[in-house]
Amino acid sequence: MNSSNSSTDLSTLKSSAQDAIDNKTKPPGSLGQLESVAVQLATIQRTLKPVVDPARVIVFGADHGVTEEGVSAFPAEVTVQMMANFAAGGAAVCVLSKSANASLEVIDVGVNGDLSEFSAIVQQKVTRGTANLAKGAAMTHEQLDSALQVGREAIVRAADQGVQCVGLGEMGIGNTTSAAILTGLLCAQNADAAADVTGRGTGLSDEQMPVKQRVVAEAMQRLESLSDDPMECLRQAGGLEIAAIVGAMLEAPAHSMVVIVDGFIVTSAALVACQIRPAVRDNLLFAHRSAEIGHALALDTLNAEPLLQLGMRLGEGSAAAMAIPLVRGAAAIMSDMASFAEAGVSTGE
Amino acid sequence: MNSSNSSTDLSTLKSSAQDAIDNKTKPPGSLGQLESVAVQLATIQRTLKPVVDPARVIVFGADHGVTEEGVSAFPAEVTVQMMANFAAGGAAVCVLSKSANASLEVIDVGVNGDLSEFSAIVQQKVTRGTANLAKGAAMTHEQLDSALQVGREAIVRAADQGVQCVGLGEMGIGNTTSAAILTGLLCAQNADAAADVTGRGTGLSDEQMPVKQRVVAEAMQRLESLSDDPMECLRQAGGLEIAAIVGAMLEAPAHSMVVIVDGFIVTSAALVACQIRPAVRDNLLFAHRSAEIGHALALDTLNAEPLLQLGMRLGEGSAAAMAIPLVRGAAAIMSDMASFAEAGVSTGE
Repeated sequence: MNSSNSSTDLSTLKSSAQDAIDNKTKPPGSLGQLESVAVQLATIQRTLKPVVDPARVIVFGADHGVTEEGVSAFPAEVTVQMMANFAAGGAAVCVLSKSANASLEVIDVGVNGDLSEFSAIVQQKVTRGTANLAKGAAMTHEQLDSALQVGREAIVRAADQGVQCVGLGEMGIGNTTSAAILTGLLCAQNADAAADVTGRGTGLSDEQMPVKQRVVAEAMQRLESLSDDPMECLRQAGGLEIAAIVGAMLEAPAHSMVVIVDGFIVTSAALVACQIRPAVRDNLLFAHRSAEIGHALALDTLNAEPLLQLGMRLGEGSAAAMAIPLVRGAAAIMSDMASFAEAGVSTGE
Repeated sequence: MNSSNSSTDLSTLKSSAQDAIDNKTKPPGSLGQLESVAVQLATIQRTLKPVVDPARVIVFGADHGVTEEGVSAFPAEVTVQMMANFAAGGAAVCVLSKSANASLEVIDVGVNGDLSEFSAIVQQKVTRGTANLAKGAAMTHEQLDSALQVGREAIVRAADQGVQCVGLGEMGIGNTTSAAILTGLLCAQNADAAADVTGRGTGLSDEQMPVKQRVVAEAMQRLESLSDDPMECLRQAGGLEIAAIVGAMLEAPAHSMVVIVDGFIVTSAALVACQIRPAVRDNLLFAHRSAEIGHALALDTLNAEPLLQLGMRLGEGSAAAMAIPLVRGAAAIMSDMASFAEAGVSTGE
């Protein structure tokens, strides 16, 4: 596509897609949000016959040094245990991806444990977990670059295999702390707002909550001056899996890849990716409104209207998996429904 | 099952199902509404390994004499045209059922036109549309009985063919008027509340709305004294397709059939069915919160929490189709996820 014409072409395509939807055999607008998703799919894939299949859920797993502060209800070793559970097919994201007719790819981008025995896991460990963000930068520059590259490669690999739509998910005990800090910094809140972005994660008790809030508030205070440098915020506060997701998002537009954002943690990666390159936003669909506090603020900042509101707060990619059939339905409306003219149905006019 | 023990058994089963969900490898409650749906599925099917497949969407089509009052944005002949569109596979419910991996059954229970050429349509026409409810009873007693029977037979047929879950949908120009009257009567509103249950249906103009509101208000006034007789309300105000859906719902429990309620019109049938036999409610899941005014009141009355909120207002069974993959996901959680013990994952305790 000629770059000088691309924005005109895109606007023409978007308007053709809207016309096509308006002429399908249904009252205008009566399929609600599925219609706007259908138009977005057409725009991403630059066709009036968008497709979602094959679809894939990609889960990036990594550990977090900040867990030594006591910010999680579950012990840090659960990351490696859950990665094994993913490999064995027993986790929520496994059964939900399967039920949604999507393949599942699990990537070790930085788990603090040996997962090399699992052939079902893509072995791309950058390092055994981040440094404790409460005491300094979570990643070195080299680690950040490597993690971003792992994410980029996942999208290139998916595109090479014909995948049209990826749901992005994560596993990493402690990562709601990173997501809270990134959300706080990038949604332009000051450190006083730490309580508004710090939730219970996997189920933190009343006793543990003040610890997590203190860690988030102190990190926000330390990093406040960096809030216009999303990449540095990511290096300081992020997890390796969050960095990989940012890399995946940055790579998606070049492959016309539809990206479904899972929940709070993946949305925090979207904040980073969209501030680095705003065009990424066009490729993103949002799976759900998480029960985790802080997600609403991140969604508002991204002007995102999620597909589901089921009170889910698991992560992994579980909500992204559940959103795939809705996105598939939206594609089917655009690609397969008859127009009034084709079906010989009278319009309301 | 011994009837004297059945309520105890049911409560034991429900509690076992809740225990099973709580021991899956995820923080308790973190899959939100999918968890309560999973427990409901287990309870309906009386097993800790519930299944949704094969799933089917059933669309009942019929015409409405009340259209001669001018209550719809679309002309009455659109019902027969859309039934043909269903048979040809071009309508929203066709492509959405297919994308949701559900079969589709379309039943003519009372369309005012000849659909006999379409082998894809189940031919069970009771009569060519209802009488005009603005002038008297919409159906005779015999017509009502026949329409109820058509719905019952659809569930028996589905059960015989191994179907585990049905989404119920409808097609009938004018049927939001019937649904509004039924909702108004059965949610214990007086005729003054007609405006609160009367929506724009397929897209009624500002000029046409007062006509529809007057028709609804006058019918509610005429039938107010019958509001404790849901079957007579149905005969007076209902459509043949709404009666068939009531019949289907009444039949569902005997076959442990999971029923997904589509939108406003199918929910009005649920009001009738659940007032006739409260146990029907246990088998019902609700697909979505329709944009049609009046649906919220009906959902509240049924204590129903729908799965989707996408601003849809098409009917047909389109939202029921989109809800099937979510219900499938809920079944997969219960049936296929590993427990903490099975997976060797540490709990948060």
